[in-house]
Amino acid sequence: MKTLLKEMRHNPLLWLLAFVPVVLAAAKLKPEAHTLLFVLSVFAIVPLAALLSRATESVAAKTGDAVGGLLNATLGNLTELVIALTALRAGEYMLVKASIAGAIVTNTLFMLGASFLLGGLKYHMQEYNRVNARVQAGLLFLATIALLIPSLVSQPGSTVAAPIVQELSVGLAVLLIVAYALGMVFSLVTHKEEFASVAHGEEGEAPWPVGLAVMTLAGVTVLVALVSEIFVESVQKAAESFGMSQAFVGFIVVALVGGAAEMASAFSGARKNRLDLSVGIALGSASQIALFVAPVLVLASYFIGPTPMDLQFWLGAVAMMFFATLTAALVTNSGRSAWFAGVLVITVYLVFAMALYLLPPREQQLGKSVEAMEQQSK
Amino acid sequence: MKTLLKEMRHNPLLWLLAFVPVVLAAAKLKPEAHTLLFVLSVFAIVPLAALLSRATESVAAKTGDAVGGLLNATLGNLTELVIALTALRAGEYMLVKASIAGAIVTNTLFMLGASFLLGGLKYHMQEYNRVNARVQAGLLFLATIALLIPSLVSQPGSTVAAPIVQELSVGLAVLLIVAYALGMVFSLVTHKEEFASVAHGEEGEAPWPVGLAVMTLAGVTVLVALVSEIFVESVQKAAESFGMSQAFVGFIVVALVGGAAEMASAFSGARKNRLDLSVGIALGSASQIALFVAPVLVLASYFIGPTPMDLQFWLGAVAMMFFATLTAALVTNSGRSAWFAGVLVITVYLVFAMALYLLPPREQQLGKSVEAMEQQSK
Amino acid sequence: MKTLLKEMRHNPLLWLLAFVPVVLAAAKLKPEAHTLLFVLSVFAIVPLAALLSRATESVAAKTGDAVGGLLNATLGNLTELVIALTALRAGEYMLVKASIAGAIVTNTLFMLGASFLLGGLKYHMQEYNRVNARVQAGLLFLATIALLIPSLVSQPGSTVAAPIVQELSVGLAVLLIVAYALGMVFSLVTHKEEFASVAHGEEGEAPWPVGLAVMTLAGVTVLVALVSEIFVESVQKAAESFGMSQAFVGFIVVALVGGAAEMASAFSGARKNRLDLSVGIALGSASQIALFVAPVLVLASYFIGPTPMDLQFWLGAVAMMFFATLTAALVTNSGRSAWFAGVLVITVYLVFAMALYLLPPREQQLGKSVEAMEQQSK
Repeated sequence: MKTLLKEMRHNPLLWLLAFVPVVLAAAKLKPEAHTLLFVLSVFAIVPLAALLSRATESVAAKTGDAVGGLLNATLGNLTELVIALTALRAGEYMLVKASIAGAIVTNTLFMLGASFLLGGLKYHMQEYNRVNARVQAGLLFLATIALLIPSLVSQPGSTVAAPIVQELSVGLAVLLIVAYALGMVFSLVTHKEEFASVAHGEEGEAPWPVGLAVMTLAGVTVLVALVSEIFVESVQKAAESFGMSQAFVGFIVVALVGGAAEMASAFSGARKNRLDLSVGIALGSASQIALFVAPVLVLASYFIGPTPMDLQFWLGAVAMMFFATLTAALVTNSGRSAWFAGVLVITVYLVFAMALYLLPPREQQLGKSVEAMEQQSK
Repeated sequence: MKTLLKEMRHNPLLWLLAFVPVVLAAAKLKPEAHTLLFVLSVFAIVPLAALLSRATESVAAKTGDAVGGLLNATLGNLTELVIALTALRAGEYMLVKASIAGAIVTNTLFMLGASFLLGGLKYHMQEYNRVNARVQAGLLFLATIALLIPSLVSQPGSTVAAPIVQELSVGLAVLLIVAYALGMVFSLVTHKEEFASVAHGEEGEAPWPVGLAVMTLAGVTVLVALVSEIFVESVQKAAESFGMSQAFVGFIVVALVGGAAEMASAFSGARKNRLDLSVGIALGSASQIALFVAPVLVLASYFIGPTPMDLQFWLGAVAMMFFATLTAALVTNSGRSAWFAGVLVITVYLVFAMALYLLPPREQQLGKSVEAMEQQSK
Repeated sequence: MKTLLKEMRHNPLLWLLAFVPVVLAAAKLKPEAHTLLFVLSVFAIVPLAALLSRATESVAAKTGDAVGGLLNATLGNLTELVIALTALRAGEYMLVKASIAGAIVTNTLFMLGASFLLGGLKYHMQEYNRVNARVQAGLLFLATIALLIPSLVSQPGSTVAAPIVQELSVGLAVLLIVAYALGMVFSLVTHKEEFASVAHGEEGEAPWPVGLAVMTLAGVTVLVALVSEIFVESVQKAAESFGMSQAFVGFIVVALVGGAAEMASAFSGARKNRLDLSVGIALGSASQIALFVAPVLVLASYFIGPTPMDLQFWLGAVAMMFFATLTAALVTNSGRSAWFAGVLVITVYLVFAMALYLLPPREQQLGKSVEAMEQQSK
C-alpha cells in the first residue's frame, strides 16, 4: 500500500483515479446522461490502464516477457469477456460480434503498429523474438480461416440452413479452444526456451513486490470491467450525437478504449526496447480473443443467451480480419523493426477506420448489403 | 524375393496383403456389395501403401531425398491419375474436379501437418531444406492463381460464354505443364545442389537392393491402382449409407485413402528425422497434381471424354486451395518445425473437413449455390 | 555532347532515334493513320528507353543503387503521369484506371520476373538487399488493401451512394501520399544505410559525367512523354484491328510499352548482377504508381477533370493487383534469386494476360459483370 501511494505521488496521471468513484456514482444517479457518462468513463479508464500496465510490468520482471505478455493479454481480455457476456445476456449478438472483430483488428494493427512506431522513434532498429510472433500470427491466421468458413458457407444464394451454420460454429469453437490450449502448452511447457526474449532493454523503475502487483492486477481488472460497462452503454448513444456510424463505434471506439490497458503496457514496453513484450501483448491479445474469447462466447450463448450465437460475421469484418492477420504475418516475419514498419501497419488500420467512419451513420451498411442479397436470393 | 519374404515375416502389417486378391475377386463376384467392397478395399490398400513406402525409402537411400520425394510423389499420383482417367471416360467431371481439389488440400494440409506433428512428437525441433519447400510452395501458389482465374471470370452475372472458359482452360493447362517441367529442370538439373537434404537422420532398416525396390514400386503401384478403383466405385454408395455428403467423400475420404501410400512414406520419413523427404512428398505431390495431373486431364478430355473438361472449380474449392497454399507457404518459410506447426496445419484441415461434413448429404451445397446465382443472373 | 555522339556510334540501337521526329511529324500530318502511328511510336520509344537507361545508370553510379532506382522509377513514371493527366482531362476514367492497375501488375510481375530470369540465366544465384524489397512490397501491399476498400464497399447489393465512395477515395489518396512520403524519408534519410546494395557486380561502361546524364534524363523524358501520347492514342484503334480486347490493351500493351524505359534499365541491371537496381526499379515503380501517381490523379481530377475521379476499380483488376503483390512479397522474401523465381513470377503474369486476352474484344467483361450485378440489385 505504501508503494502504491508513493507511486501515486510520482505519477500525476494516477490522480485521475478519482474519476472511478465519480463515474460509478454518476451511472447510478444519472443513467440517462450518456454523453457525460461517456466522458467520465474515458477519464476513469485511463489511470486504471496506467496502473494495470505498471503492475503487469512488475510481474513480467519476475516471469519473463513471454509469460508477462500472456498474463497481460489475459487480464486485458477479461474486460472484453465481461463486457461481451453482458451483451450476450441481453441478446445483442451484433454488438458482441462487432466488438470481437474490432478487438482483433485493433490489437493486430493499431497496438502492434503503434508499438513499432513508438519504439522506432526512440531506437534506430529493434529486434524481437520472431518465434513468438510467428506462433501468434499462425494462430491468428488459423482463426481467421475458421471465422471465414461460416460466412462463406451461408453466402447469398446459398440454401444452407441456419441450424447447419450453428452446428458448424459449435464445432469450430471447440477446435479453436483446443488449438489455443495446445499453443499454450507449446509456448509455456514444451518449447518455452524458444520464447525467451532476445534483448531485455532498460529495466525502468524498480518492480513492485509480486504480492502487491498481483493484488493490484486483480483489483484494477474488476474496476476496469465495471467502468468499461458504463462506457459501452453510453458510447453508443454518445456516438450518435457525434454523428458516428454503429460500425465505427463497435469496431474502432470500443476496441480502442477496451484495449487501453493492454496498449499502455505494450507502448511502455516498446519505449523501453522490450519489443518482445509489446509484440506478445498485441498479437497474443488478438489471438486470445479469436481463439478463446469468441469460442467461449459461442458455447456460453447456449446457457445464458436467449438463443444460441453463431460465428457468422459480415463479410467486411471477415475481410478486415484476414488482411490484418496477413499484414501482421508479413511484417513480423523478420524479427526486426524500425519506425516505418509501424507507419505501414497503422496506415492499414487508418484505411479500415476511414471506410467504417464514412459509412452512413444509421445503418451498418456492409452488414446491410449482405442481408439485402440474402433477401434478394430468396 | 527372399528380401521381400523376410520383410513380411518382420512386419505383420504386410499379412493384410491377403486382402488384395480377396477384394479383386469380390469386385468380380459381388459388384453390388458396396459397403463390403469399401471395407475390403481399405484393408487391402493399407499394406500396399506400407510396401510402397518401404520400397521408396530404399530408392531414396540411393538417390537422395529430393529425387526420392519426387519419385514417391509421381508414383503415388499415378494412382490418382488412373482413377481420374476412368472417371473422365465416364464423363464424371464433378468427381474428377473434387478429387483434384481434395488431393491438393489433403496433401498440403493433412500430409504436411501430420508429418510435422509425428516428427515433432519424437524430436524437439526438426530442420529441413527450405529451398525445396519454397519452390514447391511457389509452384502451388502459381497453380492456385491459375485455377482461380476461370472461376472468377465465369462468376454469376458474367456473360462470358463457356467456349471462352474452355479456351482459357487449355491455355492455362499448357502454361502449368511448362512451369512444372521447368521446375523439374531447376530442382534436378541446374540447381540440384540447393535441394540437398540438410540432415540425414536415422538410416533405419537396411535398404533393399535397387532392382528389387524398383520392381516392387512398379508392381505395387499397379495393384494400388486396381484396388483404388474398386474403392472409389464403392465409397460413393457406402458413404451415402453412412450419411456423408458427396463433397466430403470426394474431398476428404477419397483424397485420404488415395494418398495413403504417399502418407505412409511421408510419416515414416518424419519419424526418422528426414523431414526433407516428408516435405518433398507432401508439397511435391500437391504441386504435381495441380501442375501436371489436372492439366493433363484437361488435355486428355479432348481425346477420351464425351466433352472437353474445363478448369472451372466451385468457389469453395478454390478458396480452400488458396488458403491451404498460403498456410503451407507461411509455415514452411522458416525451414524449422516443432510439433505445434503440425497442430496448426492440421487444424486448418479439420476446419475444412468439418464444413464439408456438415453440408447437407444429398447436394454439394457450395457448388449448388454458385449454380443458383447463375440461374438467378440470367 | 561528344560523349553522346560517341555512344551513338557504339550502339546501333540509338540510330532508331531517327524515328522520334518522324513519328512526331506523322502525328501532325496524318492523325488518322492509327496503325502506322502505332508502329512508328513503338520504334521511337525503344531507343529513347535505351538512352534513358544509360543515363540513369550513370547517375546511379554516383548515387548508389537505391537512389538510382528511385530516380529511375520517378522519371519512368513521369511518362505514365503525363499520359494519365491527358486522359483525365478528356474524362476517360476507365482508361486511366486500367493503365494504373496494368502498370502496377506489369511492373510487379513482368519487370521483376524478367529481371530474375535474365539475371538468373547469366548468374547461378543472385543476392539483393531484401530490406528494400520488403519496404516496397509492404507499401504495395498497403496500397492494394486501400484500393480494395472502395470496390468492396460499393459491391452489388450495397446501398452505399457514390458521394461516399468519392469522399473515401479522397481520404485514401491523402493517406497513400503521406505513407509514400514517409517511406521516402525512411529509405533516403533515417535508415539509408539499410538500403545499401549487397553486391555491386560489374561496373560495365564508364559512366557519363553527371551533368550530361541529368540533362539527357530530362530531355529524353520529355520526348518519351510526347511519343507515348501518340502511342496511347493510336494503340486503342490499332489493337481493335488486331482483334485485342480493351482490357488487354489497357492492362498489358500500354503498360509494357509505357514501362519500356524502366524495363531496359532493370534488365540491364540484372545482366550486370546488380539485382538491387532491378528490384528497386520494378517494385519502386509499382509502389510509386499505387501510392503517388494514382492518388495524385484522384486529387487532380477535382481541378482538371469534368467530374471527380474515385479509386473504385473493377473486381478483376483489384484481384490481380492483390495476387501480384502477394507473389512479389513471397518471392522477394529470401533476398536470393535464381532463374526459376523469374519463371514463376512471369507465369503468373502470363496467366493474367491470357485471361485478359481471351475476354470478348468489344467489352471489358469483368467490368461489365459488376455493372450487371449492380443493375440487378436495384
